[in-house]
Amino acid sequence: MDARIREHAEIVADWSTDISRGDQVMIHCQEGAEELARALVGEVADRGGQPLVTYKSGKAGRAFLRRADDKTIATEPAHARAATEAADVVVHLRAGQNTRESSDVPSQAQARRRKAVEDIREERLSKRWCLTMHPTDALAQEAGMSTEAFADLYYDAVLIDWAEFAQEIERVADRFNGADEVRLVGEGTDLTMPVTDRHFVASIGDKNLPSGEAFTAPILDGTTGEAYIDLPAVVEGREVQGIHLTFEEGQVVEYSAERGEEALESLLETDEGADKLGELGIGMNRGIDRPTRNILLDEKMGGTIHLALGRAYKECNGEVESAVHQDFIKTMGEGSRIEVDGEVVQRDGTFWYEDGFDG
Amino acid sequence: MDARIREHAEIVADWSTDISRGDQVMIHCQEGAEELARALVGEVADRGGQPLVTYKSGKAGRAFLRRADDKTIATEPAHARAATEAADVVVHLRAGQNTRESSDVPSQAQARRRKAVEDIREERLSKRWCLTMHPTDALAQEAGMSTEAFADLYYDAVLIDWAEFAQEIERVADRFNGADEVRLVGEGTDLTMPVTDRHFVASIGDKNLPSGEAFTAPILDGTTGEAYIDLPAVVEGREVQGIHLTFEEGQVVEYSAERGEEALESLLETDEGADKLGELGIGMNRGIDRPTRNILLDEKMGGTIHLALGRAYKECNGEVESAVHQDFIKTMGEGSRIEVDGEVVQRDGTFWYEDGFDG
Repeated sequence: MDARIREHAEIVADWSTDISRGDQVMIHCQEGAEELARALVGEVADRGGQPLVTYKSGKAGRAFLRRADDKTIATEPAHARAATEAADVVVHLRAGQNTRESSDVPSQAQARRRKAVEDIREERLSKRWCLTMHPTDALAQEAGMSTEAFADLYYDAVLIDWAEFAQEIERVADRFNGADEVRLVGEGTDLTMPVTDRHFVASIGDKNLPSGEAFTAPILDGTTGEAYIDLPAVVEGREVQGIHLTFEEGQVVEYSAERGEEALESLLETDEGADKLGELGIGMNRGIDRPTRNILLDEKMGGTIHLALGRAYKECNGEVESAVHQDFIKTMGEGSRIEVDGEVVQRDGTFWYEDGFDG
Repeated sequence: MDARIREHAEIVADWSTDISRGDQVMIHCQEGAEELARALVGEVADRGGQPLVTYKSGKAGRAFLRRADDKTIATEPAHARAATEAADVVVHLRAGQNTRESSDVPSQAQARRRKAVEDIREERLSKRWCLTMHPTDALAQEAGMSTEAFADLYYDAVLIDWAEFAQEIERVADRFNGADEVRLVGEGTDLTMPVTDRHFVASIGDKNLPSGEAFTAPILDGTTGEAYIDLPAVVEGREVQGIHLTFEEGQVVEYSAERGEEALESLLETDEGADKLGELGIGMNRGIDRPTRNILLDEKMGGTIHLALGRAYKECNGEVESAVHQDFIKTMGEGSRIEVDGEVVQRDGTFWYEDGFDG
């Protein structure tokens, strides 16, 4: 086994989820992450926990959603619910052998299933949980990279001193906390978001690994303006590119995409919260030096922000509820800025405390 | 996907477990059975059930048992228990990429874990359940066969008209039911087993697939004699060959093995029931035409019997309780016979109703 897989599993078990004696640990292993699952089972064993590995294959998921009828898709799986309720820690190992496995699954079926398992998701969010990833051929292909080079990039972003990096992320979150308003300005973008009493969370590699972002749930009332999303998003297995979103009171009132607009439309119609702004995130992980078409990595990329439609995170005091949480990532390049109560804290992608910042 | 995999999954879903709308179906997928798991998820979806796939890797199991301390190994996993309790149907897909994965796991650890999950096993036995298999490279290698030839043998034993074969198996079970005593005679073997009021079960491809056997739990009092087991058994990942067992009142009072005796010793010492005779089985599946060193197949082989130490099946009215259920298979060759209340019902491996029977 690649020594980096063991090291990754150790970080998940210690830094991210603090597994200790007696913990009931659910490990959701996607197809292709088997080695990481095995490494993690060993770490759980070392710490006196009980592992239960479930297997999530994109191909099996496709088979289920294409062959089950609406009623079956809309039914919560009771055994999965029971196992999750009995768990102390839930770890998702994202991987996959074909990132487009759901490309011929009707969006409606995917949305219906998301709703059916929403309570299980909420249950999981009440535990110690971590979403991490294993670099597979398919994910490398999606990134337009060789498997070896993609794995190198991935482990450079994951196998770092998280205690040290956490301090930097917390510094940025602290700068936003207590503010009344955040404004994003950039290409096709001028969006104002009230944030009074909303909490900016420092994401320091616990719930997401890798991480490196500060995020909050803006207040819907007063969230007004437009945003242009330059990086491609994968929505329900389909690629959506060149997205324009116009917000009024936190709701998407106009939208367009240069490509994949139908998937965007289906997403927005999932439920009442699906067209509301659920998250503003600010990427800080400079180890992720290029977009990889992988949301777990890309939303953490230094010099980007992301807006998510749908469910807000409770720890931000967010108000949006939805089965959907879809991130859209925007590069903060030349001419862009982030303002906090009128003061520029990032310009051209550079933070106020970094070399070359031109306040 | 090999069309035979789909057909196999259909038989599991219909004949073996009768999956129908609303069923919560747990699918325990061993490493290597991923395609069969996927096919079965599709069949579950077709019938309106909810699938939950768990992943059992021999390598992860080894890591757990080698790295967890005694207390952790002896602790029941609460999430696995909860999921099993919520299930209506449990299907085990046996497979594996290395049949000797547990060869360097201490037998004590394996025994301790078996005890820890015994209640979960009992819970599962109270559901509709099926143990089946997917033919992998490793299983073919264990059988000393090419992967292709092994798969051909396997599907010949599985993809048959079970309704028709079931009639033959029930005919044999009926012949034994109501009898007072069964006697086995053969090479190194003369074993008498009282069976008054014990039930002979016709195993017709539901709980085991493939199947094709009639089995019961003999009465311990009066089960006396000796047996020579000519086919090799895999006990806790170790091969045991040339086994002599001497029984008094259903208990093993003397034992020896030409090879692997320590594994046998460890097995017998697991708990109070581990050295008691829990099962007599009579193999009837003529499709399985050679030993494959795979218990699921070999114990069903036409012209064999098997004796199991440890836990008796409740449906036989058996009395032995144990975390262990270890089968040992014996060829009923030239000079052998099975007597029911003194009457020969099989001689030289041929049943009374078959051509060439010399009563």
